[in-house]
Parts: sequence; structure tokens; C-alpha cells
Amino acid sequence: MGKNITWHQSTVTKMDRHTLNGHKSCVLWFTGLSGSGKSTLANAVDHALFMRGIRSYVLDGDNIRHGLNRDLSFRKEDRKENIRRIGEVAKLFVDSGQIISSAFISPYLADRELVRNMFAEGEFIEIYLHCPIEVCESRDPKGLYKKARKGEIAEFTGITSPYEKPDQPEIFIETNKMTIEQSVSDILAYLKERKIL
Amino acid sequence: MGKNITWHQSTVTKMDRHTLNGHKSCVLWFTGLSGSGKSTLANAVDHALFMRGIRSYVLDGDNIRHGLNRDLSFRKEDRKENIRRIGEVAKLFVDSGQIISSAFISPYLADRELVRNMFAEGEFIEIYLHCPIEVCESRDPKGLYKKARKGEIAEFTGITSPYEKPDQPEIFIETNKMTIEQSVSDILAYLKERKIL
Repeated sequence: MGKNITWHQSTVTKMDRHTLNGHKSCVLWFTGLSGSGKSTLANAVDHALFMRGIRSYVLDGDNIRHGLNRDLSFRKEDRKENIRRIGEVAKLFVDSGQIISSAFISPYLADRELVRNMFAEGEFIEIYLHCPIEVCESRDPKGLYKKARKGEIAEFTGITSPYEKPDQPEIFIETNKMTIEQSVSDILAYLKERKIL
Repeated sequence: MGKNITWHQSTVTKMDRHTLNGHKSCVLWFTGLSGSGKSTLANAVDHALFMRGIRSYVLDGDNIRHGLNRDLSFRKEDRKENIRRIGEVAKLFVDSGQIISSAFISPYLADRELVRNMFAEGEFIEIYLHCPIEVCESRDPKGLYKKARKGEIAEFTGITSPYEKPDQPEIFIETNKMTIEQSVSDILAYLKERKIL
């Protein structure tokens, strides 16, 4: 691998695309337990960005597993590969000038670090959705906690598989204490403060 | 796989994104021998679209192999997986409202069919860059034909590995007879005719 490969510099640069769009690009990396609200919040942020004419898109853990990562299981090695590929796709979207939200449990620190290191300083924005597991379990939007408790799902994050909390996420949201509207507003404020918008 | 997965309908739809962008999205799938001009033409089309304020991006065979597909070799099974993943990524870009150009040899009919079938009618536009192998070999921009002739590259398309021509590509370009400008112009005319632009 690598020997017979040449890197093609795209004629249109990332900076050109930022100029066309009127905003910079970045990845909003939502991480947290199942039921902590990642997809809901990522889609709410995406909608708020769209309403402001900002080019954005959501990569969703559940959605992407029907396509790109349909060949991967939920075992640790495959979870790592799942996150690596999503990181690489997010990088392509950032290069294309979009704000890309990714909503995956992404339970391992090392895997998230691997993705962070794919990006330039300031492009990777980790958003940790904190929510007590009891609350996530009571929400249980897909009935997964129930199945996990019955032993029907092996290696379920928070029950039979660890969730490693981010040490220093760029944004920290307690989804059992804040409304979606407040959370979206905090994220947009961060993007403005960092001059991404 | 698949049992514990729910498809999340994105709040913002592809059609919403088309409205924001003022154009539809599609994939321009460039296929042809090494040296037939895929990357050059894909980037030229991308630049022409950019200059018209159209949201577009290029997935390049050589570039993507440094990232998403760095774990894949050039063997037949891996070439298939290479194309499958690129198709899935192209699909995400099309869903995000962009015109995505992909520039890969993609030598096998079945692999290209697999990608075509991921898309709705009219979204997958196959562009066959025809060029006699002697001309491609004389261009040899990366010195790969020279290496292949020396036996330093196993399974090189056109020499030790087959290239299966498209039966009915949407666009057919003889890159040894047309200038880049003419080719770009033909592709843009096609996009206008199909009301993508």
C-alpha cells in the first residue's frame, strides 16, 4: 500500500469552499450513551444550521450502518474500524466545506483520539452528551436497554461494555437538565465564538 | 447486523438541500484506464461547477486510498470493497445535496452496477473516458505502466488485469480526441439538459 499512490491536490481548495459558503467547516462529534440524545440533538443542530443557510449534514451511527459500515459487527475491533471510517468520511465532508455532525456512541477514548488527530486544530469539536444511565434506560427509544438487560445484546455500552468519558470535550451538555433548544443554542454560540459561523 | 438498528430520517431532507443550493445532486462516476484522464477531468468539472456557485466535491481513487480505504489492497476482492465504500460515501454526498465526482478506474461492470443500484433513477451518471491504451501508456503520468511492464505491479488494469467497458454510459468521452474544455462543456450541458443544474 502507498507505493504507487500520488496525492492529488484538488483544484478547488477547502478555503475556496469556505469562501463560497460564507462559513468554515468542522466536525461536531456527538458522543454519549445510547439514549443520551445524540441523533436527536445532531439533527436539531443540523436543522438550525440549515435554516441559517449553512451547509451541513448528519452522519448517524444507525444510518451509516445500513450502508458504508454494513459489514461491521459491534465487537471491539469492528467498533474501532466503524469509528475510523466515520472519521475519514467526516474528514471528506469537512474538506468539502460542510459542517458535519456525527452521532455515535463512540465509547472508547483511543478511537475518538484517533479521529481527532485526523483533523487540523479547531476542526474537531467533541460534544459530550452526559446523561445518567438510569435516565437513558428509562428513555430507551429503541428498546435496546430492555434487550441488553435480558442478555439479548452482547457488549452493550454502559451495561456489559464500557463507556470512556471524554476528559476535555469542547462542549459538555447534560441532556437530562437542558432542553434541546438550549443545547442547540449553546452549540451555535460556540461555533460563532470560534468564528466558524 | 440489522436487527437492533433503526433508520433515522434526517430532519432536513435531500430536497430541502436542493432548494437551498439551487441545484440537484448526483454522482458523476468517471471510469477508464489509468492515464485516461479521470482525475484531471473530474477536477476540471468540479472547478467549473464551483465557479458557478454549485456545491460539488471530488472523490479521487488515489486520495481516498490514503484515508478511508487505506486498509485495502489492489486485489479483486479488495477492489470490489474499495468501489462499494466509495459508492456509499458518494451516496452520503448526494444526500447532502452535493454533486460528487468520483475518479476511479473501477474496471469491473458488476462493481459499477452495484454502485448504480445504490442510487435513484438519474442520480448515477457514468462517464466513460475512452482512450487507447497506447496513448494512456505514453502519458503514464505516474510511471505506473512502466512499472507494470517490468512486472513490478501485479494485476495492473489493461495489462495484467481486465477493464470491462461500460455498455451504455450516460456520457462517452474520447480523451485522446477532445480537449478538457470541450469535455467539461459536454458534461455541464448534460447536467443542464437533465435539469440537475
